[in-house]
Amino acid sequence: MEEKLEQLKKISAEITDLQYAAAVLGWDQQCYMPPAGAAARGNQLGTLGRLAHERLVSDETGKLIEELVPYGEQLDPDSDEARMIKVAAREYKKRTRVPSDWVVEFAQVTTNAHHVWAEARQENNFGKFQPYLEKIVDLRRRYASYFEPYDHVYDTLLDDFEPGMKTADVIAIFTALRPQQVELIRRIAERPEIDNSFLFKQYDPQKQWDFGVEVISKFGYDWKRGRQDKAAHPFTTSFSVDDVRITTRVFPDNLSSAMFSTMHECGHALYDMGVNPDYERTPLTGATSLAVHESQSRMWENLVGRSMPFWEHFYPRLQEYFPSQLGNVDLGTFYKGINKVKPSLIRVEADEATYNLHVMLRLELEIALMEGSLQVKDLPEAWNNRMKDYLGVTPPNDTMGVLQDVHWSGGMIGYFSTYALGNLVSAQLWDCIHKDIPDLEDQIRRGEFSALLGWVREKIHRHGAKYEPQELVKMVTGTKIDPAPYMDYLTKKYSEVYEF
Amino acid sequence: MEEKLEQLKKISAEITDLQYAAAVLGWDQQCYMPPAGAAARGNQLGTLGRLAHERLVSDETGKLIEELVPYGEQLDPDSDEARMIKVAAREYKKRTRVPSDWVVEFAQVTTNAHHVWAEARQENNFGKFQPYLEKIVDLRRRYASYFEPYDHVYDTLLDDFEPGMKTADVIAIFTALRPQQVELIRRIAERPEIDNSFLFKQYDPQKQWDFGVEVISKFGYDWKRGRQDKAAHPFTTSFSVDDVRITTRVFPDNLSSAMFSTMHECGHALYDMGVNPDYERTPLTGATSLAVHESQSRMWENLVGRSMPFWEHFYPRLQEYFPSQLGNVDLGTFYKGINKVKPSLIRVEADEATYNLHVMLRLELEIALMEGSLQVKDLPEAWNNRMKDYLGVTPPNDTMGVLQDVHWSGGMIGYFSTYALGNLVSAQLWDCIHKDIPDLEDQIRRGEFSALLGWVREKIHRHGAKYEPQELVKMVTGTKIDPAPYMDYLTKKYSEVYEF
Repeated sequence: MEEKLEQLKKISAEITDLQYAAAVLGWDQQCYMPPAGAAARGNQLGTLGRLAHERLVSDETGKLIEELVPYGEQLDPDSDEARMIKVAAREYKKRTRVPSDWVVEFAQVTTNAHHVWAEARQENNFGKFQPYLEKIVDLRRRYASYFEPYDHVYDTLLDDFEPGMKTADVIAIFTALRPQQVELIRRIAERPEIDNSFLFKQYDPQKQWDFGVEVISKFGYDWKRGRQDKAAHPFTTSFSVDDVRITTRVFPDNLSSAMFSTMHECGHALYDMGVNPDYERTPLTGATSLAVHESQSRMWENLVGRSMPFWEHFYPRLQEYFPSQLGNVDLGTFYKGINKVKPSLIRVEADEATYNLHVMLRLELEIALMEGSLQVKDLPEAWNNRMKDYLGVTPPNDTMGVLQDVHWSGGMIGYFSTYALGNLVSAQLWDCIHKDIPDLEDQIRRGEFSALLGWVREKIHRHGAKYEPQELVKMVTGTKIDPAPYMDYLTKKYSEVYEF
Repeated sequence: MEEKLEQLKKISAEITDLQYAAAVLGWDQQCYMPPAGAAARGNQLGTLGRLAHERLVSDETGKLIEELVPYGEQLDPDSDEARMIKVAAREYKKRTRVPSDWVVEFAQVTTNAHHVWAEARQENNFGKFQPYLEKIVDLRRRYASYFEPYDHVYDTLLDDFEPGMKTADVIAIFTALRPQQVELIRRIAERPEIDNSFLFKQYDPQKQWDFGVEVISKFGYDWKRGRQDKAAHPFTTSFSVDDVRITTRVFPDNLSSAMFSTMHECGHALYDMGVNPDYERTPLTGATSLAVHESQSRMWENLVGRSMPFWEHFYPRLQEYFPSQLGNVDLGTFYKGINKVKPSLIRVEADEATYNLHVMLRLELEIALMEGSLQVKDLPEAWNNRMKDYLGVTPPNDTMGVLQDVHWSGGMIGYFSTYALGNLVSAQLWDCIHKDIPDLEDQIRRGEFSALLGWVREKIHRHGAKYEPQELVKMVTGTKIDPAPYMDYLTKKYSEVYEF
């Protein structure tokens, strides 16, 4: 049986290599590829993806898994071997349920839909995108049907990003959270508006870049195992535990954007850099889920990067970089400025207090689309109504409303909730970290992050995909994903910032 | 049968995609990869290479080729289809002759040998590299044995880079050339040494880069289909006919290096950009051979880039970039400076007059090693003796002698002669171009290169790998590869530069 396990690892190594190679091609596509290279790149990524898929669902893989599953069940259930077999079996089972016809059609539809969406957004023309999105929703409903019987039609989609998570869990979490977030925003709206205009002066892009590099170097980003490049949309990508790259974009008239996006991506990267190297090229490599991944990026960006202790350390340094812009802005003013709350139309520009509401809106619409209780043609209206209810703002057009996100055009339904879940997990972890590192804030005030990084490495990163997300969160915090700590964190923070 | 041809094209497309993907990974490795990423990158490249190889030698491919070869022989022998089948069959036949045991052992030995060579070169310790090179020579002799019977043990190695070329042909060409080149250098050595010290002043690297970009933009390098990055060793690489990238390195105290290397790599890139797009992802994509590839790079670098008409156009511009360094250097002095001949130890730094002798030396040593008439342990002495005979210089150590090139450590034996053959082909083509474009020099003098590029596109580039190199050269110039035009070119040029 050990021999068969070795054989499974060999297949997994090959699949991982193909996926990592595709990641390199994707990174290049977004950072450096000349425009005319796109068509050939699509072919190359298609071939790599197909080969990885074929290997994953091959009869050889199926036979190995069939033989290994009973063997794995006899092993210590917490051993790497048992988990490796379990994760591989889960993946195999899921992938083989989906007919290859569906896979081919989905790839074709989403490739076209992506182009059409980009045009429709540009032209503020939802009608142009509508038939493609209808097709995608149909395809996703067919996709779900391959996993019948299910508790909820949305379960499989969620499970693709959050293994083991159920729609009912997510609905319960967000139902508890929504009224509290809406109420918090209502209270903030009663307070005087914060002036953060100093963040929108002219800031030299190279200096912004340098400051970001200085910060994440202190966080523990390992430049021997990574690098930062520029991209239109910041992202993190890994080609191994020893090659984890981040990207950022820098606006000359917006100090917050690059600064916090750099910390955010660094948070993702620290996770990928911290996975047990023994898991490399096995089913246990990589993160357990997108929500847990997002908990790491949001922790470094928000719980660390938008905190007062952090800026007690770094603000004098930032003032050295930008004396003419910030020399006369005191720490308190700066802190309030970067924590200003303002309900807005665009998710990716939303502040901490409003962000989750953007996500909940999308989740509810996705569920309704999948259930069939909402038609694609009625989506813009449903979007705008919810924006009004939750955030008190109404998009002036669909470009700034229902057409703003790329996800649906790529067929990604089930993804959005992970953003909000990540916020919740980050606060749960933060409470535990405080218990284990009582002087955490003093350490941050001194610009020391090694104990913090050590904690998340030990508790989260090193485990890779060994545990399912809910299992891991419970193991570390004592409870499954729970909105209370995040709500407490927001309330405490904003009652200080807005003095209510 | 058309269906079977489509099937062959499908396999070829998959193999090409894997090769292109590997090329992207290789480009990243040399341009951007963080140091710790190397081990994983090796795995990824290994997997891509293995999958491409497995596909190429698969039973499915073999069966298709077996059926298609008789069909192809009934087609117009000059049709793309007939050629496609022929090239695929040649590649299949060659690859399947080599046992996979050999392939695995060769990959292992060369991976290690490369590291050891780098250390040995650093430490000036040939003894350290010797056992690895012995192993490589053994492996290459075994490799040749799979192709028995052959006319010469070196034939297969040469054929890997120059399809259809025979060792006897290369020996005949170089035997004719060598005494003439040695004699030319002797005559130059009698003349007063040229002062080119102005090339080694301080030259701002960014300005050097910008000037290079300006030149190759005029050559016709298409920035929508390519880009230039920095690398320790300049190279060109292609990920499709629409994504052809070049690299360069810039020294602050050497004006020639980046300038001519940029033109050289651009020459390679123009070839790859000019292949018939219909050949993309078929066996006909890419260049016919390394020598023909080198003919293109050397043409733009030397026949264009080191010519008087070229500098009549570009020298005023270069003086604008570097007024303090070149303001007082007149065109004639500059021209002589960039064409200075000085026998030296290092091939990659050699001038046009001496370059081929560096290559001949290596070719002769390789042939002797393969024949068994020279032992690896005796290689340093044989190297140094030939350096003395051909170039009149003796390496002070092996680092600057037998250890200077990377090729052998990677198992590449049979490669070097393509550098010299490329020079010869470039001059053969140049004669033909002059006949077809009588005012070529005037065009160059005006900074116009479109007719020249059009000619090489039409005659060479677009054909891709359709014709074997000797066949193509004969088709275009009327004769096979012939040293006479190159020798005439060198003699004419240097008799002017050195006034003899």
